[in-house]
Amino acid sequence: MSFPSDLEIARKAELKPLGIIAKESGIPEESLELYGEGAAKIKLDAIDSMTNKPKAKYVVVTAITPTPLGEGKTTTTVGLGQGFSHIGKRATIAIRQPSLGPTFGIKGGAAGGGYAQVVPMELFNLHLTGDMHAVTAAHNMCSAMLDSHLFHGNDLGLDIHNITWRRVMDINDRSLRNATIGLGGRLDGIPRETGFDITAASEVMAALALCTSLEDLRKRMGRIVVGYDKEMNPITAEDIEVAGAMTVLLKEAIKPNLMQTLEGTPALVHCGPFGNIATGNSSIIADQIGIHTGDYLLTEAGFGADMGAT
Amino acid sequence: MSFPSDLEIARKAELKPLGIIAKESGIPEESLELYGEGAAKIKLDAIDSMTNKPKAKYVVVTAITPTPLGEGKTTTTVGLGQGFSHIGKRATIAIRQPSLGPTFGIKGGAAGGGYAQVVPMELFNLHLTGDMHAVTAAHNMCSAMLDSHLFHGNDLGLDIHNITWRRVMDINDRSLRNATIGLGGRLDGIPRETGFDITAASEVMAALALCTSLEDLRKRMGRIVVGYDKEMNPITAEDIEVAGAMTVLLKEAIKPNLMQTLEGTPALVHCGPFGNIATGNSSIIADQIGIHTGDYLLTEAGFGADMGAT
Amino acid sequence: MSFPSDLEIARKAELKPLGIIAKESGIPEESLELYGEGAAKIKLDAIDSMTNKPKAKYVVVTAITPTPLGEGKTTTTVGLGQGFSHIGKRATIAIRQPSLGPTFGIKGGAAGGGYAQVVPMELFNLHLTGDMHAVTAAHNMCSAMLDSHLFHGNDLGLDIHNITWRRVMDINDRSLRNATIGLGGRLDGIPRETGFDITAASEVMAALALCTSLEDLRKRMGRIVVGYDKEMNPITAEDIEVAGAMTVLLKEAIKPNLMQTLEGTPALVHCGPFGNIATGNSSIIADQIGIHTGDYLLTEAGFGADMGAT
Amino acid sequence: MSFPSDLEIARKAELKPLGIIAKESGIPEESLELYGEGAAKIKLDAIDSMTNKPKAKYVVVTAITPTPLGEGKTTTTVGLGQGFSHIGKRATIAIRQPSLGPTFGIKGGAAGGGYAQVVPMELFNLHLTGDMHAVTAAHNMCSAMLDSHLFHGNDLGLDIHNITWRRVMDINDRSLRNATIGLGGRLDGIPRETGFDITAASEVMAALALCTSLEDLRKRMGRIVVGYDKEMNPITAEDIEVAGAMTVLLKEAIKPNLMQTLEGTPALVHCGPFGNIATGNSSIIADQIGIHTGDYLLTEAGFGADMGAT
Repeated sequence: MSFPSDLEIARKAELKPLGIIAKESGIPEESLELYGEGAAKIKLDAIDSMTNKPKAKYVVVTAITPTPLGEGKTTTTVGLGQGFSHIGKRATIAIRQPSLGPTFGIKGGAAGGGYAQVVPMELFNLHLTGDMHAVTAAHNMCSAMLDSHLFHGNDLGLDIHNITWRRVMDINDRSLRNATIGLGGRLDGIPRETGFDITAASEVMAALALCTSLEDLRKRMGRIVVGYDKEMNPITAEDIEVAGAMTVLLKEAIKPNLMQTLEGTPALVHCGPFGNIATGNSSIIADQIGIHTGDYLLTEAGFGADMGAT
Repeated sequence: MSFPSDLEIARKAELKPLGIIAKESGIPEESLELYGEGAAKIKLDAIDSMTNKPKAKYVVVTAITPTPLGEGKTTTTVGLGQGFSHIGKRATIAIRQPSLGPTFGIKGGAAGGGYAQVVPMELFNLHLTGDMHAVTAAHNMCSAMLDSHLFHGNDLGLDIHNITWRRVMDINDRSLRNATIGLGGRLDGIPRETGFDITAASEVMAALALCTSLEDLRKRMGRIVVGYDKEMNPITAEDIEVAGAMTVLLKEAIKPNLMQTLEGTPALVHCGPFGNIATGNSSIIADQIGIHTGDYLLTEAGFGADMGAT
Repeated sequence: MSFPSDLEIARKAELKPLGIIAKESGIPEESLELYGEGAAKIKLDAIDSMTNKPKAKYVVVTAITPTPLGEGKTTTTVGLGQGFSHIGKRATIAIRQPSLGPTFGIKGGAAGGGYAQVVPMELFNLHLTGDMHAVTAAHNMCSAMLDSHLFHGNDLGLDIHNITWRRVMDINDRSLRNATIGLGGRLDGIPRETGFDITAASEVMAALALCTSLEDLRKRMGRIVVGYDKEMNPITAEDIEVAGAMTVLLKEAIKPNLMQTLEGTPALVHCGPFGNIATGNSSIIADQIGIHTGDYLLTEAGFGADMGAT
Repeated sequence: MSFPSDLEIARKAELKPLGIIAKESGIPEESLELYGEGAAKIKLDAIDSMTNKPKAKYVVVTAITPTPLGEGKTTTTVGLGQGFSHIGKRATIAIRQPSLGPTFGIKGGAAGGGYAQVVPMELFNLHLTGDMHAVTAAHNMCSAMLDSHLFHGNDLGLDIHNITWRRVMDINDRSLRNATIGLGGRLDGIPRETGFDITAASEVMAALALCTSLEDLRKRMGRIVVGYDKEMNPITAEDIEVAGAMTVLLKEAIKPNLMQTLEGTPALVHCGPFGNIATGNSSIIADQIGIHTGDYLLTEAGFGADMGAT
């Protein structure tokens, strides 16, 4: 007897209209922005309009031993979410958006597995609504402004040996880990050593996951330390006047995405913080909405879960 | 007497529902994928279902002398499009999606101006439906695979001094024009000189604008030459086995975006080819749809218009 | 019938004591500093003490078409020098010291050939009395001080994109033509693009060949332009306070070397200017001495002979 | 009451002819090669011709706490050497040749101090007979051949991430510690990360100090490991066919230099090994000669003296 692959299962899924799922979860229709048929963004005004609804129980699903293929946190979270409806409870799951890197690597996607998947699987694993790309753009906009500041005379006196802000890319690309940039001549910037991290490890991603509003995000962008001057005074994104532009680039990404599981359980998909500085959870904003959508909010927590779990 | 700014005008715009605009243009409702309220993607099956409708007259709007602030091609195109409806004709405009770079630079956006704008202006100027980011991702996926191929022994014998495929970013960042990558040690790739171009100048963008279907795009990705071996034989994206992944990353970006002008004229917004290799037009696919939407299809053509105009 | 190789001929040579050669040429004994048996340096006081002796006829030997193996300028010069003594005339030859590079390359040395060689051939082709190394040291001392100036705050405002002073090495080393230096971190200098030329092409070599005294050399070192500030004002070796140290490093190299041909003709060997900035001749100082040593002074002139010939 | 400076004392020194000093020390006249008035090289045949003379007592002078200004090892060695003659004993000192770096730095020379100096001080501190430059040339010839091997196809399969042979320069130049070389294009070598050390720290210097003959030196050059292949097999200078050329470049440098102290004590000056791989002593060959020149051979030992002391 054969068993269908994850992809076969996912492709056979019959999607419930997201308007229905939102309605069942108490998410106001006017707060929903459809992005094709598979995902919708939830406007932040939903936080206020849902604030008086009853609070769900908050359940953290995590694991301790990472393997190259993952441990099954998402699969467990999805499975649990679907299980609750079988016993008459309304559950919502809150998970992180995956990096593109693992999708094209050994792991092959992050949407769960078997009959416990978030769908549409390809949408989930690829660009979704573009949040990851927006984080990349905001992060690299800051990098570009920083190097532009050096190029235009370095009025703030940034120490080129003490610039901590690198660049990011949502692709596994080992050749970019360490690079010498600004080469080529007079018009091509100031030479210096730097490199690229993956987007998920960006402080912008961490801040996006932790902020509670666009105003809060704007302040967090401004506080980002990009480097130091020779006297070891920190220089911030505010100082190089890029925090506003970064926030503008994130004004859609701040909205959580609504998707669903194979059995129609609502899935809030938002942010993907990763690495040493990250909490390893989905976002505060997704939680603020999710906590008012049913009986249980099941949130997945990865690396750094001890920080993120509250 | 004062005159309102472009932004003030744009923000006061009352958007017509895109479903109405599609209906008026003969675009089948089931081919429409809403992306929020301001934009929708048009599925490629619309090409076939609209093929028997009457053909519009095809008008190219272009200009010859570039200035730092632009010349007004988009403004003229939008204005013409709106003008046609005042004389009782149905017009659709087809324009390119702008780079992020100019939006944050001196030019300040590319949506037209005054009462001849595409709206919502901020959506148009920022991420829109993520096509630009998808092109960036597809292009850089190819770069990463290429360097990974070098790292894993270079079985194809790529000459590191004759690699023509660089990386791209949708940001004006002069410091990345020339870079030495692959630095840092044994696990960090093979050192070599390369750099970044803007995403609009990517051959992926040019191919996306020229393709007629996903199958055609897949073949075009495979034919991309990434470099040469020591005997000057070309090595392609097919050879390094990345053309499939690149196409997957572009499967949403291949769909044209439907937006509108301030007066509700349908605007097909798609691709943004730029630079020496580019046609300077919006896409063939946008044209294939647009040509069946009314009396006139007004297409804007930029740098390389002589190539793109047919 | 076999013909002995250049090396066999050179090794069988019976050297005349250099004291005898100097005496025959009217070079004061007290001006001679022996460097082993094969070469001697001539102190600059010889210029004054010989100034009233009769002047020789000045003959320039040159050629116009360079080949990878050389054209035979030195061989001709040496042969001519030896020929004069067969017709009862006293001749001295003045030639340049070769680079190490060609010695280990295809050319295999620069001492002439057959029975028209300067001996000891290996001494001539290798370090001789160290002048080439002294030029390398003086040049690179300047480079080190320049980068040290950048490192310590760049008070002179050198534009790192307009530094014209590179480094030199007396070895053919293509990998050093273009390099990014100053990498590694806070204590390791300021990153910038530069590279190495061959020592013979150094402006220090050209100045050494043209100077008429140690004081003159000191001034020439001071006038060397190492780069420019942002307003395009030149910055000199004097400005970065290295001209004195450079001159100290050259105080032995300024003295011409006395060697001999296979038949005991005196050979003044000094400097080796090469490349676009060079005169292609041996030194003015060697000429000032040689012109008073007999009936003919035969001077070889290479690349740039038209500049050097007077 | 004023005290004259080291330089004033050194410049007033009346040098004894080195022929006299050699004669008093039993060094055969025919083994002496004068290099100007201040130094002479001793040919290696002196080892055999002196082997039956009585052996001196061997005294090691060293110190344990380095300071930026030095500790006075050389001054003590010179003073001791001079003191012995005051009590009727014949002593010879054996010291290392200094780097150029410290001479132009804070230390200001390494010839001892006060009335305990090796003279001529400037000769000692600068190029002397060119040995340091020869070591630089031999070391960098190996580096050039190594990069040339990579450039011409890397038949030996050197792992560019496991090349341990760097370049050297006899100048303090922090900007060269870490460099990316081989940049610039097809004819300019293979890009890779490397850097420069000071000449004194070269393995060539260590080998020169330890060898007992030119044949021995040739073998030691051949055994130098320049890097490893991917299977971690060592690649040597012999493998890249440069060991012979390196030895040729060192055929004068292998001969110890004879100088004198202010009071005419013979001073053998040879090699200057430094750094982690070095013994910190003058050379075995200088010892082989010095041990037969009188009642005491006083040898100075620096960093690594515990290795070098026997």
